[in-house]
Amino acid sequence: MTSAETPADAGPSLLAPGWAGSPAAAATGDGAYLRALLDAEAALTRAQAALGLAPAGAATAVTDAADPARFDVRSLAERARAGGNPVIPLVADLTRAVGEEYGPYVHRGATSQDILDTATMLVAVRTLDLVLADLERTGRALAGLAAEHRDTSMPGRTLTQHAVPTTFGLKAAGWRSLVLDARDRIVAVRDGLPAQLGGAAGTLAAFAAYGATDPAALPAAYARELGLRAPLLPWHTLRTPVADLAGCLAFAAGALGKVAADVLTLSRTEIAEVAEGSGGGSSAMPHKANPVRATLIAAAARRAPQLAATLYGALAAEDERPAGAWHAEWEPLRELLRLTGGAARDAAELTEGLRVHPGAMRAHLGLTHGLIVSERLSAELAPVLGRARAKELLTEIAGRTYTEGRTLGELLAEEPELSGVDLGDLTDPARYTGSAGALTDRALERR
Amino acid sequence: MTSAETPADAGPSLLAPGWAGSPAAAATGDGAYLRALLDAEAALTRAQAALGLAPAGAATAVTDAADPARFDVRSLAERARAGGNPVIPLVADLTRAVGEEYGPYVHRGATSQDILDTATMLVAVRTLDLVLADLERTGRALAGLAAEHRDTSMPGRTLTQHAVPTTFGLKAAGWRSLVLDARDRIVAVRDGLPAQLGGAAGTLAAFAAYGATDPAALPAAYARELGLRAPLLPWHTLRTPVADLAGCLAFAAGALGKVAADVLTLSRTEIAEVAEGSGGGSSAMPHKANPVRATLIAAAARRAPQLAATLYGALAAEDERPAGAWHAEWEPLRELLRLTGGAARDAAELTEGLRVHPGAMRAHLGLTHGLIVSERLSAELAPVLGRARAKELLTEIAGRTYTEGRTLGELLAEEPELSGVDLGDLTDPARYTGSAGALTDRALERR
Amino acid sequence: MTSAETPADAGPSLLAPGWAGSPAAAATGDGAYLRALLDAEAALTRAQAALGLAPAGAATAVTDAADPARFDVRSLAERARAGGNPVIPLVADLTRAVGEEYGPYVHRGATSQDILDTATMLVAVRTLDLVLADLERTGRALAGLAAEHRDTSMPGRTLTQHAVPTTFGLKAAGWRSLVLDARDRIVAVRDGLPAQLGGAAGTLAAFAAYGATDPAALPAAYARELGLRAPLLPWHTLRTPVADLAGCLAFAAGALGKVAADVLTLSRTEIAEVAEGSGGGSSAMPHKANPVRATLIAAAARRAPQLAATLYGALAAEDERPAGAWHAEWEPLRELLRLTGGAARDAAELTEGLRVHPGAMRAHLGLTHGLIVSERLSAELAPVLGRARAKELLTEIAGRTYTEGRTLGELLAEEPELSGVDLGDLTDPARYTGSAGALTDRALERR
Amino acid sequence: MTSAETPADAGPSLLAPGWAGSPAAAATGDGAYLRALLDAEAALTRAQAALGLAPAGAATAVTDAADPARFDVRSLAERARAGGNPVIPLVADLTRAVGEEYGPYVHRGATSQDILDTATMLVAVRTLDLVLADLERTGRALAGLAAEHRDTSMPGRTLTQHAVPTTFGLKAAGWRSLVLDARDRIVAVRDGLPAQLGGAAGTLAAFAAYGATDPAALPAAYARELGLRAPLLPWHTLRTPVADLAGCLAFAAGALGKVAADVLTLSRTEIAEVAEGSGGGSSAMPHKANPVRATLIAAAARRAPQLAATLYGALAAEDERPAGAWHAEWEPLRELLRLTGGAARDAAELTEGLRVHPGAMRAHLGLTHGLIVSERLSAELAPVLGRARAKELLTEIAGRTYTEGRTLGELLAEEPELSGVDLGDLTDPARYTGSAGALTDRALERR
Repeated sequence: MTSAETPADAGPSLLAPGWAGSPAAAATGDGAYLRALLDAEAALTRAQAALGLAPAGAATAVTDAADPARFDVRSLAERARAGGNPVIPLVADLTRAVGEEYGPYVHRGATSQDILDTATMLVAVRTLDLVLADLERTGRALAGLAAEHRDTSMPGRTLTQHAVPTTFGLKAAGWRSLVLDARDRIVAVRDGLPAQLGGAAGTLAAFAAYGATDPAALPAAYARELGLRAPLLPWHTLRTPVADLAGCLAFAAGALGKVAADVLTLSRTEIAEVAEGSGGGSSAMPHKANPVRATLIAAAARRAPQLAATLYGALAAEDERPAGAWHAEWEPLRELLRLTGGAARDAAELTEGLRVHPGAMRAHLGLTHGLIVSERLSAELAPVLGRARAKELLTEIAGRTYTEGRTLGELLAEEPELSGVDLGDLTDPARYTGSAGALTDRALERR
Repeated sequence: MTSAETPADAGPSLLAPGWAGSPAAAATGDGAYLRALLDAEAALTRAQAALGLAPAGAATAVTDAADPARFDVRSLAERARAGGNPVIPLVADLTRAVGEEYGPYVHRGATSQDILDTATMLVAVRTLDLVLADLERTGRALAGLAAEHRDTSMPGRTLTQHAVPTTFGLKAAGWRSLVLDARDRIVAVRDGLPAQLGGAAGTLAAFAAYGATDPAALPAAYARELGLRAPLLPWHTLRTPVADLAGCLAFAAGALGKVAADVLTLSRTEIAEVAEGSGGGSSAMPHKANPVRATLIAAAARRAPQLAATLYGALAAEDERPAGAWHAEWEPLRELLRLTGGAARDAAELTEGLRVHPGAMRAHLGLTHGLIVSERLSAELAPVLGRARAKELLTEIAGRTYTEGRTLGELLAEEPELSGVDLGDLTDPARYTGSAGALTDRALERR
Repeated sequence: MTSAETPADAGPSLLAPGWAGSPAAAATGDGAYLRALLDAEAALTRAQAALGLAPAGAATAVTDAADPARFDVRSLAERARAGGNPVIPLVADLTRAVGEEYGPYVHRGATSQDILDTATMLVAVRTLDLVLADLERTGRALAGLAAEHRDTSMPGRTLTQHAVPTTFGLKAAGWRSLVLDARDRIVAVRDGLPAQLGGAAGTLAAFAAYGATDPAALPAAYARELGLRAPLLPWHTLRTPVADLAGCLAFAAGALGKVAADVLTLSRTEIAEVAEGSGGGSSAMPHKANPVRATLIAAAARRAPQLAATLYGALAAEDERPAGAWHAEWEPLRELLRLTGGAARDAAELTEGLRVHPGAMRAHLGLTHGLIVSERLSAELAPVLGRARAKELLTEIAGRTYTEGRTLGELLAEEPELSGVDLGDLTDPARYTGSAGALTDRALERR
Repeated sequence: MTSAETPADAGPSLLAPGWAGSPAAAATGDGAYLRALLDAEAALTRAQAALGLAPAGAATAVTDAADPARFDVRSLAERARAGGNPVIPLVADLTRAVGEEYGPYVHRGATSQDILDTATMLVAVRTLDLVLADLERTGRALAGLAAEHRDTSMPGRTLTQHAVPTTFGLKAAGWRSLVLDARDRIVAVRDGLPAQLGGAAGTLAAFAAYGATDPAALPAAYARELGLRAPLLPWHTLRTPVADLAGCLAFAAGALGKVAADVLTLSRTEIAEVAEGSGGGSSAMPHKANPVRATLIAAAARRAPQLAATLYGALAAEDERPAGAWHAEWEPLRELLRLTGGAARDAAELTEGLRVHPGAMRAHLGLTHGLIVSERLSAELAPVLGRARAKELLTEIAGRTYTEGRTLGELLAEEPELSGVDLGDLTDPARYTGSAGALTDRALERR
């Protein structure tokens, strides 16, 4: 499904620049849900026909009638209110559309939740495929950045302060490893998403009343029609698939949120070590180039955890169908799919277009007057001067760097005790990046 | 604004039977936000004109052009992506609509956040008024139930078990007190919601550049145009109003959630002490009358706290405008308004139509064979028998009620030591409702 | 570690009956963290010694000194404040304890986060093993219940109302499947938890300055000492392990929450289909037997999602060590481990002791006057009477069941059209449990 | 209560540098809860004595026995497990301590929740007073900073980029306004916190059985003894006070989180416009001065919203006492009190010790080559050059600032068209702070 095919169902989005117009928006709109609901109904009748529980004509009739264009989403949405879910009016409309002969085969033996849960899994699979494509792009772009900047040194920052040097390559490789972690978690969840089929209370009893003999055969046939996994048990109140979706989506949004957090920091006017390819404008200040993609990703990362919390909370669902816990899942799951999908789209654009400024990075390595390599000097001067003297000397000179405005290297060069030491190497931040290069190489081997 | 006036902007709602079609849905749709954004822009130009900072013709021209019907919401939503907010394309379109002469007075001196925050406050005030109307209805219905059932005794239940008797009147009075608490919190917040005006970084500098002399005058005039409070300071990153909204809305949703939780319990097939006026049907079981209103309210109550958490989290907004924290507010606040609005609508219907079954309540008072009054007997037999003997006797007889299938009253009546005691009164659960009636009366005095 | 060994470190728990005194409490107390921090420090020195980067004597000295009994937890906790983490004072105390000769080898090349993250992973692994043991017990108990009650019919309930019959065996099998899902997720996460080693900014640079040549060798040796996985990259701000823990723990708490939700419902005085083996007493009503275990599990399930949300939120961690996101993980992760551990303990006790009352279940199948099988009658009478007539007849008779107080079976038996139909079978709820038995069997095959 | 009085009850805190050792820690430890529980029990007996419902000797005996030193918190915590709350074992121990004569008057007529809820309100009031004291200090420090830096210009930053100038005074005044908002919300909530008294199911029935005649008198007397508000109704499942606490505490934590977020940004090595008075050290890099106070506040602000969400979620509490929702409140509320208390302590230290570097602020105003005042130039050159020409000129010159490395002021000075314009004033960022000074003055008038 392309967004062009479904112009009407992406929903209102004046407040959602993060996902409006994205592939995930189209894949999660009301139109996409309607399509999935109809797919589920049609698959159920076809599966029954395949097992001889319904005439072949019914399968064809229901499949033909299950055309989203024939249904009025808004009317369904409004009529959903009476019974509390949209399947009830949909079944009425579909039955009418199928006609008198085969109408009785619509939804036969099923419960609303069978259809809505199955449709939700279809929407999830379809959306996750789009998310994965954007994560793929993002991972590829980050691999390129990591390789290109394998040896681009920059300040490592901890608790907002320069710590020791690192490389932009290692940073990009780390970003990529999170993106691949997200990909792996999403793929694992996607591949396990099951169809739902249990009937009124999850016993498949009505199907038996209509003639089914093998309790496993119908759910399996139904799942096969839909490209979903056959469920081991009806899961009306065993919400593992929903919780698994919550987990992998919150993870993905958070992983992209890490990339965004770093880009926002590194884009600051005072830092300017990276810049978005095409920053957003401002309504008041024409010169500003805002890191808009990173901003919108960061916003998604702030929202996803709480949406996931609502879904994890819905695990505690009483009875054979709960009064509220199930209903509380619908919108948060859609929102989580959309937000993560929008963030993945923005992440792909962001990483593909990111401009990196090695010159600024190198310049900032000097901001602490050389103290950024004090850790190294502590380690390497101890054998030369003795541990106590090395510490004493470094402490004294560190203080002087700020008061005298000179660098550690300059001050150390004046110390006769160190005449035999290659201070040029020792005090060059670019030569104190440790295993950053090797770690980057290793991380890039992961596929 | 009625929902009939804004058919196109209530948004997709196939998954939202809780708020679809509600007054709050119409008041929070994209159309409602567009209207509020335009109201804010027009008010800004009018306020400048009122202070002599813009020609009167500009005020008229902008006000005339600010007609929602002339704008394409979908296009705005899509173009919002570039700069990360919908005000940027809106200002472009509005400027064009106003025309060459007065176009320069559109949005003059303002920043996008001035307009979007102000519009959000307008939407909030308008929606809260609708929510309050439904809370009013709910409170009135509950007052009626409390008065009518002031003396309708029923089991008090703690940790799912019968404890001692209570009355349905006291329960309804408690529900009402929560609804009034919600009302009071919403009114207090609504009355304090401020307009937003600060310019690019909250200093009002551009307005001065355009000639404003008194820094307080323009925001005050602007707020007056809109019926909002004048802000003490620009609050671009001082998000008290948003946090206050989060708090009062989460409170209201939770308060209604308490009502729903009780109705769901009392509606259970085995309990059936209350029933919704018109329960929802089931797609599979024609005889079922589901407590659908309570279910949808319960679902809202499960979601609201996490939406509020996202908004409280946005308080920690860095700089003069944050990169993400602000953007993360928009949809959750709208969702919280909608959910609470939908829940208030359902609560009004639920409480107005609730059917109460005093017979079932009374019958259940007997389910513990009279043990539901054992607390009273402990208290009142101690003076008669001595504390130790009273305890011994009650423990022994409590055991026998279950093994012999007889009531506490019957068994006690066989004890000669108690021949002078009015066991009929002492063991009647309906006569052990303590101060339930008086508490109900007192609670109903609150307005 | 047994709880008997660590009596002093389970922490205050006056407000935590859910986990106080549990194995998980002891495994997550301050004492357990202190032990894990010292284990991490000792392992680091040993790993350096194993690679020839430190003398063997240092490894022995640090390992000997790293005895929790020699450290003052309270003092460490207070001194943690200055630098914002407990490793700083711990390293000072440990260095002093090791003495002058080998003191310099304590913590050499590491950063506080290396030690605290590694210790957290140790605590997590140790606690998860305890949780798994209790999930194992729970799963076993549920398998027994499912097998024993494979054919115990009871009302299936949806939206609080009787829907169609189900069996207690299927319900117990469903609970077990969630417990096994939790087990599988926890095992997968536990087996992947990595040690942390990166040095000040994650480049391993200090280790190289102290002589390490192979960037992968030291983390691998360190991880081996600890029984953790070797990390692919330092993960100071790549928080996959923490997010994975959040996900599996929130899942487990929610899965047990489902069991608790059902037990609470089925324990209600009016329902009484199950009872906890030893219910909790009440301070006011001696006769009450509260479902305390289920209550405490339910409380844990209400809290876990929000704790997980905080952890997912910490994924968006800026720089090489974030100023806040990391610190915000510590207590919520401990709390999530404890809560889930406590809930698992309670779930084991609850399921092992659960008393099931098939008589009450069967009695409740009659509460709807037979309408609980109306779905079946619709299906099976249609071929006999024709679809339209069957529906008409059932609707009419359903109405009469309530007005006349008679059962569906009795009323149908008076219909001459149905003289040839085996109404005894058709209207017996116990014979309309569909595939419940077969589904139970299949679910029990899972190990 | 001072922290010195209660050294043993601050709880484990190895992972809590944010609150360990704080006044709020001592006020929320197990010892503090024990004291409050005993205060509640003693007050109940005294209130009954005051109304003639118990002998005066009982009041004295219970008050004397209610000495925390005589109780074993750990034992209570462990025994709390059986019944699911700590009041049950406490009542047993207290009754024994009071002795045979007056033991029967301990807890007479009350339910566990009466005592635990009341104790929680006492703990809350006591802790909020400490929080308020630290907010007071913080507000005072910020008033000082705002006044001192009323005219200290600095870059206003939006979406991480320089926008237009602002002042540090306005920033500090904004921080203060949030702190005052927090203060106001906390005071309002604190002043309304009620005692809890309802008996087993909230009807006060047992008190009547023991002789009470006026249903309002006993709760009022009890509340008076404790310095709490008398409740309008028992609020066992009407959780307004808990939700109100959640709201004001989440607000306060978020408000302080805003201060912390700004301090963290402004402390960055590249920005260094402010620094904490005494930054925290690093275990690996002796030169680092980390913004530790801000870091710990930021961590609290990340956690508070989710804790509040759990409390808001507990509003939906079924029946007369819920099975889980109540229990889920205890630890999150304590945690929220502690976290906010710790954050308030750190905020007081942070703001009192904050070092401000106006020189760095001024230097940064030049980082955009003068474009930081482009907004002003657009406004002020339009009347001089005509709107179109002004825009054209500024756009061209803005581009040249970066390519030529010269400032906007220099380039504009070369334009003959502008020979009559005072470019020195127009392009000086320090003269484009708009109403920052006046807004600061106005904000400081608030008390």
